[in-house]
Amino acid sequence: MKQIDLMKELHVPSDKKILMLVLDGLGGLPDEKGLTELEAARTPNMDKLCKESICGLSIPVAVGVTPGSGPGHLGLFGYDPLEYQIGRGVLEALGIGLVLTPDSLAARGNFCTLDPATGVITDRRAGRIPTEKCTELVNKLRAITLKGVKITLEPVKDYRFALILEGEGLDEGLSETDPQKTGLKPLKVEPLHSGAKKSAELLNAWIEKAFAVLKDEKPANGCTLRGIAKDPGLPSYKQVYGLKSCAIATYPMYKGLARLVGMDVLDAGETLASEVKTLKDSWAKYDFFFFHVKKTDSAGEDGNFEAKVKVIEETDALIPEIMALRPDVVLITGDHSTPSALKSHSWHELPVLLYANNIRKDAVQEFGERACMAGGLGHIRHVDLMPLVMAHADKLTKYGA
Amino acid sequence: MKQIDLMKELHVPSDKKILMLVLDGLGGLPDEKGLTELEAARTPNMDKLCKESICGLSIPVAVGVTPGSGPGHLGLFGYDPLEYQIGRGVLEALGIGLVLTPDSLAARGNFCTLDPATGVITDRRAGRIPTEKCTELVNKLRAITLKGVKITLEPVKDYRFALILEGEGLDEGLSETDPQKTGLKPLKVEPLHSGAKKSAELLNAWIEKAFAVLKDEKPANGCTLRGIAKDPGLPSYKQVYGLKSCAIATYPMYKGLARLVGMDVLDAGETLASEVKTLKDSWAKYDFFFFHVKKTDSAGEDGNFEAKVKVIEETDALIPEIMALRPDVVLITGDHSTPSALKSHSWHELPVLLYANNIRKDAVQEFGERACMAGGLGHIRHVDLMPLVMAHADKLTKYGA
Repeated sequence: MKQIDLMKELHVPSDKKILMLVLDGLGGLPDEKGLTELEAARTPNMDKLCKESICGLSIPVAVGVTPGSGPGHLGLFGYDPLEYQIGRGVLEALGIGLVLTPDSLAARGNFCTLDPATGVITDRRAGRIPTEKCTELVNKLRAITLKGVKITLEPVKDYRFALILEGEGLDEGLSETDPQKTGLKPLKVEPLHSGAKKSAELLNAWIEKAFAVLKDEKPANGCTLRGIAKDPGLPSYKQVYGLKSCAIATYPMYKGLARLVGMDVLDAGETLASEVKTLKDSWAKYDFFFFHVKKTDSAGEDGNFEAKVKVIEETDALIPEIMALRPDVVLITGDHSTPSALKSHSWHELPVLLYANNIRKDAVQEFGERACMAGGLGHIRHVDLMPLVMAHADKLTKYGA
Repeated sequence: MKQIDLMKELHVPSDKKILMLVLDGLGGLPDEKGLTELEAARTPNMDKLCKESICGLSIPVAVGVTPGSGPGHLGLFGYDPLEYQIGRGVLEALGIGLVLTPDSLAARGNFCTLDPATGVITDRRAGRIPTEKCTELVNKLRAITLKGVKITLEPVKDYRFALILEGEGLDEGLSETDPQKTGLKPLKVEPLHSGAKKSAELLNAWIEKAFAVLKDEKPANGCTLRGIAKDPGLPSYKQVYGLKSCAIATYPMYKGLARLVGMDVLDAGETLASEVKTLKDSWAKYDFFFFHVKKTDSAGEDGNFEAKVKVIEETDALIPEIMALRPDVVLITGDHSTPSALKSHSWHELPVLLYANNIRKDAVQEFGERACMAGGLGHIRHVDLMPLVMAHADKLTKYGA
């Protein structure tokens, strides 16, 4: 039996409340002093919580695999990221705050440069035009209409934009139009199964009209579509866990990911302080809170060790206020590692802290990567964290007699 | 390749003997002094064995999942409890010592109260009639006969009874008759596939006759059938492991579970002392011994920390006598945790001790939950214990050339 089905079968109500605190890109690597960002940070509150908790290290997707934000969070939410996949078009749309319905088909668009004489691509990114230019072109493309379909078009960044078609009978399973190298013409969208034929026709019609609109632009006189996909239709948190859940996050991507699993997305402002205020204000209304801290990841991506340390310390300072709400179960971890030393996401395991009443405490005394190596949870997987959290919240009944 | 098939392929004979000592519900949680039942118990013999062993923590079914006795033991026996499932009717029958054959169909029966005028259920448990009343009613129902089928009927406890039909062509895949709430009539048994049609007809015929017999009873003038199932037909210990195996247990449920995998069930009396005597008397005849200690679980279920400590100490006191038989491989663990603090089964991992000649000893010096967190086995799963035991008994050959 699959874990998701097991959770659907076993979940029962309880009045306990669960807080999942996700510091994006939390995991790090040691600097020249031999300490990771989390180890270098002064985290008296997390360390205190540690003494009442069980700790460990968690593998986000699979050993050695570096996850994007989508798979990292799906794992945390208890959906095996190797089984449940989210198309790039969907992630691009979620990342800029677009809302998808079951009738939506989302694509990632790239402006490109075409040779006016031959029509072959001479620059796949149109000289990385600035976002302002991208916005200007997107505004022109908004004039395009297709019969029976609502079209949403938004600039993303530089040469990238998001395209959403919404209408009946649209399906995914479509090839991309970017030939992946210059000197070739953009491809047609091809349906990969018969059910996707209508979608292919509509997208090809849109592309033809777009090329006409862009014809005299320089350098972006063409575009390609990639990662054409639908909302994966994940079973909701309510269905899987019976939870009334909400997301407290400042960035569109994480709100979008939470929306995919049916969490209520709260207006949490733009700062850690406004996020905590939102948590307090909504405390009575939910039994599961996904609380997302973005800037640990941004600092890691910038290779800014000190900035990442600072965000961790700022988050630590909020713990007393959060614990004053008396959550019954608290999980603190990250979606993936983003070591400043690598300036990118990485495959390294995530330190995990699980606090609950009926916990089997281990000997870990401070929250850090190396301390967690000796933790009582051992090496766990992201997908196993939700069952563990549910168990500690008395929300799972016995399996079998 | 599935683990069971791998074991079937790789097992080879050796003259080594294996003892699996299962303290039911062994795993615990710390009391106010910070010690679990196992940690609080004086266990000089297990601690001594520990120094010659490798230890760890074992997940019975899946992370966060609390197992019933059935799944807990199936895991220990090396059968994935998420793949091999045992119906409630079968467990109910095994629990009172009934023996099932491949032709048996077992159901759990509940006496209930029906409104004489409308036939709807007014109490799904017939006011929880005492076991004596249940026995009296079962005796009346024994008069019912069905053509071509042998019927076995036994009281279980309070309003519960076990029903077994035995005959050719009976299959499982049947709906339950309990509508799950009062104010509704009992349902008919419906076949969930065409092969179960005959079974449904027979059970419905039995129910009709039973209602006639019970018509004038108060308050139990009706009954419902649930969890209608067959012996799951597990491959036997002989087939999977090539083992000549036996079970030494005092309670019917565990004898029944052992019988499901083809172990010889020995008459082991009612006490730990009689179990040890049985072990000694049968030592020459088998190469695998499943030795079950029940009362650790009962004490945990009662929330009686001290009583659970005492059973652990009593079991520890038997170790020298057991080790004098010179078993080659000894595994000590439990089927699931039953912390006194929770008064119920729980999802917590089980401490495991594996003793053998060719063991890679770890640094664990005493047998306890937290000591085992640092054990050399790390976090293992119940289903992986049998392959490990088989390997240490020189009973598995090389996989591949």
